[in-house]
Amino acid sequence: MKVLVVGLGALGTVFSCLLKEQGHQVAGLDQETVVNSVKNFGVRVTGIWGEHAVYLDNLYTDAEQIVDRDFDLIIMTVKAFNTAQVSAQVCRLMGPHTYMILAQNGYGNYQAAAENIPEDKLILGRVIFGAETLEMGTSKVTVIADDVILGSPRKLIDNQLLSEFARFFTEAGIPTRVSDQVMQYMWGKIIYNSALNSLGAILEVNYGQLAEMEYSRTLMDCIIREIFAVMAAMQEPTLWPNADSYLQDFYGKMVPTTAAHHASMLQDIQRGRRTEIEALNGAIVELGKRFGVPTPVNEVITQLVKAKETLNSSFSIL
Amino acid sequence: MKVLVVGLGALGTVFSCLLKEQGHQVAGLDQETVVNSVKNFGVRVTGIWGEHAVYLDNLYTDAEQIVDRDFDLIIMTVKAFNTAQVSAQVCRLMGPHTYMILAQNGYGNYQAAAENIPEDKLILGRVIFGAETLEMGTSKVTVIADDVILGSPRKLIDNQLLSEFARFFTEAGIPTRVSDQVMQYMWGKIIYNSALNSLGAILEVNYGQLAEMEYSRTLMDCIIREIFAVMAAMQEPTLWPNADSYLQDFYGKMVPTTAAHHASMLQDIQRGRRTEIEALNGAIVELGKRFGVPTPVNEVITQLVKAKETLNSSFSIL
Repeated sequence: MKVLVVGLGALGTVFSCLLKEQGHQVAGLDQETVVNSVKNFGVRVTGIWGEHAVYLDNLYTDAEQIVDRDFDLIIMTVKAFNTAQVSAQVCRLMGPHTYMILAQNGYGNYQAAAENIPEDKLILGRVIFGAETLEMGTSKVTVIADDVILGSPRKLIDNQLLSEFARFFTEAGIPTRVSDQVMQYMWGKIIYNSALNSLGAILEVNYGQLAEMEYSRTLMDCIIREIFAVMAAMQEPTLWPNADSYLQDFYGKMVPTTAAHHASMLQDIQRGRRTEIEALNGAIVELGKRFGVPTPVNEVITQLVKAKETLNSSFSIL
Repeated sequence: MKVLVVGLGALGTVFSCLLKEQGHQVAGLDQETVVNSVKNFGVRVTGIWGEHAVYLDNLYTDAEQIVDRDFDLIIMTVKAFNTAQVSAQVCRLMGPHTYMILAQNGYGNYQAAAENIPEDKLILGRVIFGAETLEMGTSKVTVIADDVILGSPRKLIDNQLLSEFARFFTEAGIPTRVSDQVMQYMWGKIIYNSALNSLGAILEVNYGQLAEMEYSRTLMDCIIREIFAVMAAMQEPTLWPNADSYLQDFYGKMVPTTAAHHASMLQDIQRGRRTEIEALNGAIVELGKRFGVPTPVNEVITQLVKAKETLNSSFSIL
């Protein structure tokens, strides 16, 4: 495959490194500081999937520099709040045979990208392994909760083609499967992150501790119940019949698997970076308003994460 | 006057030291570690009211040790969550001429003490200067927002007598006046603390920063509006016609006067001590339930402070 990875952060580094090592032709697009570092030192992956280090084929700092229109795959790994803008810049790189996979976190990425990318070329990826940037271009894979799941939310892409992408990823060392319920899986992750990632950022403890304490447990229960109420009003199908069955899975399986994990939003805050709160609890609040469902707990949690973000911010709002 | 100060923490140290220095006869009651330190080194006050150091007349570690029934005044400075228990122990020290002043924080102290102390002997004090324990028996007065206010919530005590206590306090260096609206003043302080003290404990910033940031400001607005809704349902009289007029005073006068102040509940959490959250936002939540007023923001704030308290706790729940 000829692949372009857009965003060489924690996730983009893993995808580009492992696909390139497997023999694919891989280019990367990111800001100048990142590109310079990757040009000099390559991309590296460490952690539970072992040690990997390669140089990418091409590096770009601007979509305008790219003349190729023959990518088989463009993998989007930019933060949720940049999806609209970046997909508008990248859409001109979509050739007749190019597919795009969205490998991002949170609600709204598919909807934002679909403004610019034809939906029969747009694959949603539910990525639920954890990766952490050790330094620019070096990622540590810390935890894997489940396979990556690929799918077309409106079933507009042939299953065999999706399976081929899944096979390439799996062969490269990233366990991946196809599902025609990818949006439901995505929601599962949005709920998981809205409970754990946000509270972990506020209280600065790992996921296991959040589930052990009565008070944070009560808050997570409320966050999750509010989201299920919003999804019911949206008539959004879910993999769980109700909030109770989600909570059972959540405390019984999902949290134990990732008990030692610390919130990525806490890392963002500590590094002065913008968090993805608006694509998590913040998105729930917006959907709640649109569909007439009160979401007071998600609202307070959103304001608190935004407050911590503001206190530590070194980024400029776009 | 012959005075007993119950609790020699930050506040009890200030009252006992300044009253003793002014020539009153002052005894203290607290746990053994505190009493031993005060026995050896006296009580000391530093900060904006200057330097003061005296030895107290008598020190007790248990109300049972005290045989005197001729105190003119017992000053209660224990934490709100101990008021019920301590007032039950201390009530037998109330002689025919003894009055008790409650100088504590939060909602419910008067109601709890009134279970054991006759209301025509029970004075409510609204204390709104800030004091910090530097070491056992040494307090630093950091800020004064207004006079101490003394009063009988149900107007069961003669004004002249209250004025005499106020004069003694003022002469001792603690500006104090009498009001027949002491409960309304107390509520003013409960609202102030429910907004600033709790959020300051969660976000770990000073009061000025909380008022500067859009997100924490939004949260404080919500906390205050919920409290006004609860007070309206309770038909509790207030010094402010509505939440808007409180908010104007709050951001215009109260916060600027105490902008550099850090939340006492943050100090409690950092020292592994139990906070007074249950007498602040927690009390609002309980009152909201009793009077049928939703208080979701106060509820989330309460859970988060309890969670931080649990994470740092070295106290055992009574």
